[in-house]
Amino acid sequence: MWQRRLIPPVPLELWIAELYDFAPLDQEQVYLSALGTAVETLLSGGTSVVDHLVLIPGREIETIAAAVRAYREVGIRAFIGPLIQDQSLTAGIPSGEAKQNHAPYFRSTIATLELMEEVISQFHRPDEGVNILVAPTGIQLCSDALFEGCIELSDRYNICRHTHLLETKAQKQLAKEKYGCSAVEHLQRIGYLGDRTSLAHCVWLSDSDIDILAETKSTVVHNPLSNLRLGSGIAPILKYRQAGVNVTFGCDGAASNDSQDLLEAIKIGSILHNVTDLDYQHWITPREAVEMATLGGAKGLNTAEQLGSLTVGKKADLVLYDLTSLSLLPRTDPIGLLILGRPTQAVHSVWVNGKQIVADGKVKTINVDDLRQQLFERSQWERNNRQSQTVGQIEAHYRTVMGLAELIRESS
Amino acid sequence: MWQRRLIPPVPLELWIAELYDFAPLDQEQVYLSALGTAVETLLSGGTSVVDHLVLIPGREIETIAAAVRAYREVGIRAFIGPLIQDQSLTAGIPSGEAKQNHAPYFRSTIATLELMEEVISQFHRPDEGVNILVAPTGIQLCSDALFEGCIELSDRYNICRHTHLLETKAQKQLAKEKYGCSAVEHLQRIGYLGDRTSLAHCVWLSDSDIDILAETKSTVVHNPLSNLRLGSGIAPILKYRQAGVNVTFGCDGAASNDSQDLLEAIKIGSILHNVTDLDYQHWITPREAVEMATLGGAKGLNTAEQLGSLTVGKKADLVLYDLTSLSLLPRTDPIGLLILGRPTQAVHSVWVNGKQIVADGKVKTINVDDLRQQLFERSQWERNNRQSQTVGQIEAHYRTVMGLAELIRESS
Repeated sequence: MWQRRLIPPVPLELWIAELYDFAPLDQEQVYLSALGTAVETLLSGGTSVVDHLVLIPGREIETIAAAVRAYREVGIRAFIGPLIQDQSLTAGIPSGEAKQNHAPYFRSTIATLELMEEVISQFHRPDEGVNILVAPTGIQLCSDALFEGCIELSDRYNICRHTHLLETKAQKQLAKEKYGCSAVEHLQRIGYLGDRTSLAHCVWLSDSDIDILAETKSTVVHNPLSNLRLGSGIAPILKYRQAGVNVTFGCDGAASNDSQDLLEAIKIGSILHNVTDLDYQHWITPREAVEMATLGGAKGLNTAEQLGSLTVGKKADLVLYDLTSLSLLPRTDPIGLLILGRPTQAVHSVWVNGKQIVADGKVKTINVDDLRQQLFERSQWERNNRQSQTVGQIEAHYRTVMGLAELIRESS
Repeated sequence: MWQRRLIPPVPLELWIAELYDFAPLDQEQVYLSALGTAVETLLSGGTSVVDHLVLIPGREIETIAAAVRAYREVGIRAFIGPLIQDQSLTAGIPSGEAKQNHAPYFRSTIATLELMEEVISQFHRPDEGVNILVAPTGIQLCSDALFEGCIELSDRYNICRHTHLLETKAQKQLAKEKYGCSAVEHLQRIGYLGDRTSLAHCVWLSDSDIDILAETKSTVVHNPLSNLRLGSGIAPILKYRQAGVNVTFGCDGAASNDSQDLLEAIKIGSILHNVTDLDYQHWITPREAVEMATLGGAKGLNTAEQLGSLTVGKKADLVLYDLTSLSLLPRTDPIGLLILGRPTQAVHSVWVNGKQIVADGKVKTINVDDLRQQLFERSQWERNNRQSQTVGQIEAHYRTVMGLAELIRESS
């Protein structure tokens, strides 16, 4: 959240280099960021948050502890996937014709897996609403050994798996270089896919990749806003649905969306695909969008027995909307109003596991004015003149390998 | 506004048939709808509204009077283009192989032009913030005589011109049938284009059409949300900008977006195009988006000398944002926060022509709670089971001519 709306419009490979160069190194910032994300999620209709959490190097446990503390204080249900990798950032860009050498990553694969086991043991408390996921960053920055270690942990501790998958065209190209096959075929071969596996983005899959996702009952997490913002592409969501793949919606991080508004993600994630298929009989209806956002998410987190629908016996994770909000008037179709409109100040109450957290449109568990003041005081207006060293180092290669014209402007 | 979020996901040609079948026939509804639109525009950062206004048949002057009354009461600057046509709705769908007969439109071309002249004389008061535009619906429903009459009125009274242009693939096909050339070539030939002409949508233009827009200094109004919602397509906005065409943003109507949130339109209308061009050097930056939304709009309404930038001597149409809103924190780049984020409750104050209309996030000129109550009381929850007769009549032909598979579902 500390870099939201700051990184200029560039593709993922350059965006992430800048993100990492300026990542906050203070666990109090992580705590405040998690509080802010939780509040924005609740006030846009979410009762759970999945946080693919960037770790402060050398203070990984403290980073996770800070986020867990925030989500517990707010009372939102949390699924935290510490963002792990064992290859350095430049390895995430295809080599193309050039021979590339990459510095080794600062932490070994084994140390990373030991860290994850420690994290699971310290923080994974599903009954208390805190869940840990194994969540290697993605094929672009992780070895097979890291994926395989995560599979083993996932099986041993019965926890879910998450990863980024084929967010960009560059990653599709990289997978061919790295494996000689598609990233999906490779992940299936090593056993990472399955009904407890959720996959963020999934923009650049082929039809046979889609069949593999359906077969393995994997879940696609559609992040429409960041896919547009970073120019990653339009994920073939209508094809996923036709193939029977479970799909749900995500906001992505606050530095790549740059909001954390769930209703915005559902609206854009539904209507975006109408331009990809002339036949409107295939388009996502508002009611289908609600089911994708609720039950679809619960399935991907292996909690469909407890969450995702208003069913006797399931947990009481509920949102009550104020249908007298101007943005939801005049009265027509309440589901259509929520999904296709732009509801503002529409969330009246939220309960998580039966406990009321939002009442009368206000979060009751923390002092939001105090949070705003802290976010304000600990930040400063940037004048857009910071320069990312890493972007400077990789941009020319990125442009060559992606077939873009030579760089002509002075600075990024 | 009375049908917002009610029409199912279908393309424009079916959507408009349903819209017309259920259009409100009560001028008090028009008044309330205009009040609601004005409030939502102000609270999402707009100081002007362009209303391509659907007229109640037989009570056209009263419809416009109701909208004018609403905009004057709120104090927002208004540009009203009464929606006129002289061909019936079915004429808007290409014939294809079939021979089509269309009922004549209920009002003659001459009567429509006389009506427009009366409207200009009664309501066009630029010094008081109320402007009338000539605004034939579009080539799909208007004769050359109607366009030419509008050109003459526009020249005689020095008022701006507006129309829909090539919103759908069907309209592109229709133009070929109707004129034997592109719609843009035809409009240029009859003299409708120019630096006082704004063109809504512009999705299906060829490269040579784009050159014509640049040459004639016409303005494109980009309505990204409705273009997605109706599956119309992605307008080639980056190409327009590269060709030097003036582009601004619109929300479109509340039944096809289905919100009236200007900041949402600017955000999606900016980032949507990143997926159409791999080279990020062509993408729209947040600062460029602000200029398109402000000065770009003013240019298209021939008011760039008076509006569209903070310049000594221009009118004081201003919005003040509260940068301590949670959705705009932490502090990073204020312009990026507004454009790429999802600001909620962020508008603090609005002035139009130097008069303060919004203070402390509240509209001061009308009672918004009273408006909400009236919108609530005069509407009812629809159960999505209304049937449009017209859609029933035209859907099979529409599918045939657009090359879609035969209809298999029971109802729309």
